[in-house]
Amino acid sequence: MGDPYRVKPGQKVKLSDIDPRDTDALGSEDEARGRLYLDATAIDTLQDRLYAEGKRSLLVILQGMDTSGKDGTVRGVFNTTGPLGVQVTAFRRPSEEEMAHDFLWRAHLAAPRRGTIGIFNRSHYEDVLVVKVRKLVPASDIEKRYDQINAFEKMLTENGVTILKFMLHISKAEQRERLQERLDDPKKHWKFNPGDLDDRKSWGDFMDAYETMLHRCSTEWAPWRIVPADRKWARNAVIADVVRKTLEDMNPTYPKVSWDPKSIKIV
Amino acid sequence: MGDPYRVKPGQKVKLSDIDPRDTDALGSEDEARGRLYLDATAIDTLQDRLYAEGKRSLLVILQGMDTSGKDGTVRGVFNTTGPLGVQVTAFRRPSEEEMAHDFLWRAHLAAPRRGTIGIFNRSHYEDVLVVKVRKLVPASDIEKRYDQINAFEKMLTENGVTILKFMLHISKAEQRERLQERLDDPKKHWKFNPGDLDDRKSWGDFMDAYETMLHRCSTEWAPWRIVPADRKWARNAVIADVVRKTLEDMNPTYPKVSWDPKSIKIV
Repeated sequence: MGDPYRVKPGQKVKLSDIDPRDTDALGSEDEARGRLYLDATAIDTLQDRLYAEGKRSLLVILQGMDTSGKDGTVRGVFNTTGPLGVQVTAFRRPSEEEMAHDFLWRAHLAAPRRGTIGIFNRSHYEDVLVVKVRKLVPASDIEKRYDQINAFEKMLTENGVTILKFMLHISKAEQRERLQERLDDPKKHWKFNPGDLDDRKSWGDFMDAYETMLHRCSTEWAPWRIVPADRKWARNAVIADVVRKTLEDMNPTYPKVSWDPKSIKIV
Repeated sequence: MGDPYRVKPGQKVKLSDIDPRDTDALGSEDEARGRLYLDATAIDTLQDRLYAEGKRSLLVILQGMDTSGKDGTVRGVFNTTGPLGVQVTAFRRPSEEEMAHDFLWRAHLAAPRRGTIGIFNRSHYEDVLVVKVRKLVPASDIEKRYDQINAFEKMLTENGVTILKFMLHISKAEQRERLQERLDDPKKHWKFNPGDLDDRKSWGDFMDAYETMLHRCSTEWAPWRIVPADRKWARNAVIADVVRKTLEDMNPTYPKVSWDPKSIKIV
């Protein structure tokens, strides 16, 4: 499938040039769903090896506007693997304790332990996205954060954490449909927060902030990928493919033990 | 199916009287597997409502000797639900930081947040099991822990945490088979730790410690259940049935929102 979604280091991205409905690299929906099934199964097996090896971990960072499908990605790609060895951390409005530390503190605390897959549903990138758009800290502080994030992620990768970052790219029109669904279905009302519409009003500012983030923080060691996300099946297929290939490249191995299995008698 | 596995408050249990291969309450294996499938699916749906409601949580505590199937239970019962809203905490040998606190500190830290299911793979009960058998703290301290645990769990339940505790009851013969499998299959060597055989040598002492735990800590608010676990399908069927019924009794509901959905226009 190649890797058409990856942002090269230093590359400038215009999100308006990227079609959130693009499925060109995927073939038909049926084919993509078939591959997703196989990928999810392979990810499960590879996770087992990662856990057995116990030396490295995988961190999957999901960012995107409201309704872009961060929860749906977890379900679609990681449900076969299950909760054993996969930990999801949702980054909400920071607590007082978290605010009393630097912005990377809570991300570091949630870093996946060796042998596991960690998924960040939102992440430290909120601190150069919503925090920037709403001007919650001075612009000069934001400016320093891109390099701080890159250094932080570099340190993680040098210590055995492989990092994958996916920006779920949905259109403003698709978001309207999904928000409307939440209004129309009483079972989905709880997912809707009238305050979310403020972010929608600042759509352009958010896209600018995303573009800067993609430009400044897609590194050799922790690249961003932009995932067309208007179609859920396409979004899942792209991400599952990258996760599977990444785990295959990591090639975790069952550890050799230091004792002789034949010498042991169980009584 | 009734609830034949539950230990009544104050009840004295002799584990040697309970057959680890018992499947009397379950019908045929095929029937039990069919129900497991339906139960796992129902648990997924109920978890979604629990998450939407966001007010209460479920804590599932799994205890048992090595190879009794704690990991297997997580896979068998909770893989359909997936990692979103389910968090597994494995209680390993305590760290220096954990040892510098009371024995309930790390359990409290891992308590499930509202709206989620937390699974303890081993738990604070290790502090009245292995710690007791290996005499790692004075007997007079152990003696106080049963009531301390009961008070801790009572506090949790009074604050919205429903607690289910399962002792996975396997026979010494079944453990031998499972340990031997780990020795025979190079892919399973990493699961085998020669030190584990020490626990096996103290099998009788462990059973005594389990019996005291079951007698002293099966409360109205947080009952123990003894699950015959020599047969994996039976173990999963029993636990899934209890989890499902417990969530059904909790009956989490989609919250009513304070705003009028019809008044909101998405532009």
